[in-house]
Amino acid sequence: MSYRFELFKTDPHTGARLGRMTTAHGEVRTPVFMPVGTQGTVKAMTPDGLKEAGAEIILGNTYHLYLRPGHELIRDHGGLHRFMRWDRPILTDSGGFQIFSLGPLRKIAEEGVHFQSHIDGSRHFLSPERAIEIQEALGSDIMMCLDDCTPYPADRAYAAKSMALTHRWAKRCREAKSREDRALFGIVQGGVHRDLRRASAEALAAIGFDGYAIGGLSVGEPKDLMMETLEATAPLLPAGQARYLMGVGTPEDIVEGVHHGIDLFDCVMPTRCARNGLLFTNHGKVVIKNARYRTDQAPLDETCDCYTCRNFSRAYLRHLFIAREILALLLNTIHNVRFYLALMERIRAAIAGGAFEAFRRSFRDRRTEDDAGPVADGRADDNANTEEEDEP
Amino acid sequence: MSYRFELFKTDPHTGARLGRMTTAHGEVRTPVFMPVGTQGTVKAMTPDGLKEAGAEIILGNTYHLYLRPGHELIRDHGGLHRFMRWDRPILTDSGGFQIFSLGPLRKIAEEGVHFQSHIDGSRHFLSPERAIEIQEALGSDIMMCLDDCTPYPADRAYAAKSMALTHRWAKRCREAKSREDRALFGIVQGGVHRDLRRASAEALAAIGFDGYAIGGLSVGEPKDLMMETLEATAPLLPAGQARYLMGVGTPEDIVEGVHHGIDLFDCVMPTRCARNGLLFTNHGKVVIKNARYRTDQAPLDETCDCYTCRNFSRAYLRHLFIAREILALLLNTIHNVRFYLALMERIRAAIAGGAFEAFRRSFRDRRTEDDAGPVADGRADDNANTEEEDEP
Repeated sequence: MSYRFELFKTDPHTGARLGRMTTAHGEVRTPVFMPVGTQGTVKAMTPDGLKEAGAEIILGNTYHLYLRPGHELIRDHGGLHRFMRWDRPILTDSGGFQIFSLGPLRKIAEEGVHFQSHIDGSRHFLSPERAIEIQEALGSDIMMCLDDCTPYPADRAYAAKSMALTHRWAKRCREAKSREDRALFGIVQGGVHRDLRRASAEALAAIGFDGYAIGGLSVGEPKDLMMETLEATAPLLPAGQARYLMGVGTPEDIVEGVHHGIDLFDCVMPTRCARNGLLFTNHGKVVIKNARYRTDQAPLDETCDCYTCRNFSRAYLRHLFIAREILALLLNTIHNVRFYLALMERIRAAIAGGAFEAFRRSFRDRRTEDDAGPVADGRADDNANTEEEDEP
Repeated sequence: MSYRFELFKTDPHTGARLGRMTTAHGEVRTPVFMPVGTQGTVKAMTPDGLKEAGAEIILGNTYHLYLRPGHELIRDHGGLHRFMRWDRPILTDSGGFQIFSLGPLRKIAEEGVHFQSHIDGSRHFLSPERAIEIQEALGSDIMMCLDDCTPYPADRAYAAKSMALTHRWAKRCREAKSREDRALFGIVQGGVHRDLRRASAEALAAIGFDGYAIGGLSVGEPKDLMMETLEATAPLLPAGQARYLMGVGTPEDIVEGVHHGIDLFDCVMPTRCARNGLLFTNHGKVVIKNARYRTDQAPLDETCDCYTCRNFSRAYLRHLFIAREILALLLNTIHNVRFYLALMERIRAAIAGGAFEAFRRSFRDRRTEDDAGPVADGRADDNANTEEEDEP
């Protein structure tokens, strides 16, 4: 079955949209949040656990899978779905973002980007054609164009030049795509410059993609500027296709993104924060190691239906985290992922019921006091650890 | 319901026994293997996962739980069962073994043992009475006496003196026990000296316990000597009660233990080896990081019914382990624990069918080539890491 996006409803008071993507691996209700599965696994979760949490689609990181275990190995295994035993849709990034983040280890040219592996220093080259080839080998349901992610800050001239390269690469990606049953999304760049964002949206629409992403946000710019750029850019994207805000974000950012008409989100926040003991609840954030939870027999969030909240107390979760037990990573991750996915369910229900603006207002007012998110760059893979050290 | 042990069958050709323990938290079919839950969790497993693997009873480490989060906290939480959401039986050790392993941080006296916490250096005192008090606070179904674990090597005089102290402490434990609905097991010591082992078995039987453990084995002695001592000691224990071989061991050791009439086993091997990527299968051990598994699409063990083997390939398990993913710890642990528990099921079926000796012979012959176990001291907690570094 080939890809299609259906738009069921646009909220009359906001830009919020209710829709459905149909992919080769099934349907995805939008707005949707995609947990990040960097290395062929959403960290600390089994595929069964992801389904139980309500995940309908996950994101895979092409850069990491290309380097290890290698896209040929995954292709020979029947694709990423079979390799990791995830039979629902997968969106893959192009690998570009990770490569651009390598700094001195990469060099951008018209043809593509030369880079060295962060694992062993080996030399590699990624072109638009190669990015598509790798993603097709992975068997991705939704592929992303290789883009040149404009950093922040970037002056207008730099942003314009970077954007033009992104457009030329987007065209080459479109031409390189060989699988008719898979989708390819273009990525709008242009930094925080509104006229460039408009030009980028128009240029990509002219090439024609199955969906459109807003790239180059959540890369260090002030939150106000991100929201302004989002607000200005989202309405410029073709209304009949899915809109994806890459690497965003906090629960508050997601609600605002939906407000501006975004359909897809991904972020490492729920999983990475879980491993660092920062838990999202409907009554605010919980830093589980705090002494106040030492004897707290209540569940983390009484309103949550996840395995963690149905079974364990805050005191137990605190004990596991302080004792550095692996089960802490499991239970915390299960909860945070479920929190994000349940939030999306509430958002969809609110849009369907014509009550999204009221939902948004109550959500924003209730949570203002702890609005500052601890992860600044949400567009990332779930390997870029900072505070944590959680691996076997 | 108070504790009882029923012996259904003793194999006519060997010492193998088929039985059942009834505890306050349900029944346990013997011979049984107890996964080790050092800090209120069997590392990298959920309670649901443990049940799915077929665990009927687990072991908790009193020393660790006493220090963190503290037995009063657990008691106030309704006991260890409720704290960790495990509603099946729990056996707790006395804490003595960990304390004796502290070396210079502990001092043994007639009254008990003074020690310093390995976490923060704080000073503590554990007496037989205190060991029972703590285990009753935890709500253990089967408590163990505080014993003086005789090290190897120990000359006869030392072993005799140490054993006598164990007996005096055993009597004090028996007198300190206040919960009628919970069981208390005595621990036979005596090093590798047969006459001492006999004296110890008789002294403990004279005090009278609900079950009897063989301590002081698997503490560094040669495997031959361990087996000889086991063979000489097991038949001396009261036949009508459960017999527990502490800290043992490899799958081969367990089969031999059953052969000599042992009913209960515990060991950190399945869980710790899993985290180190050493996996037990019915065709031998698998070191999952080996290059030979790089493209291997077969399950780890085609005869295994665990979640890991039903879903994932060796190539995927290798990738996860090499990429240091948390899911590697989960999937490896699920498999190894299931391997041990399935082995016990096969042992029980063989005894029930009168075919244990044939089972033992085929098991031993098939596995001789990789008989050397990587973990020398099996009687331990699952925190004493050597090769690994797997915590959050």
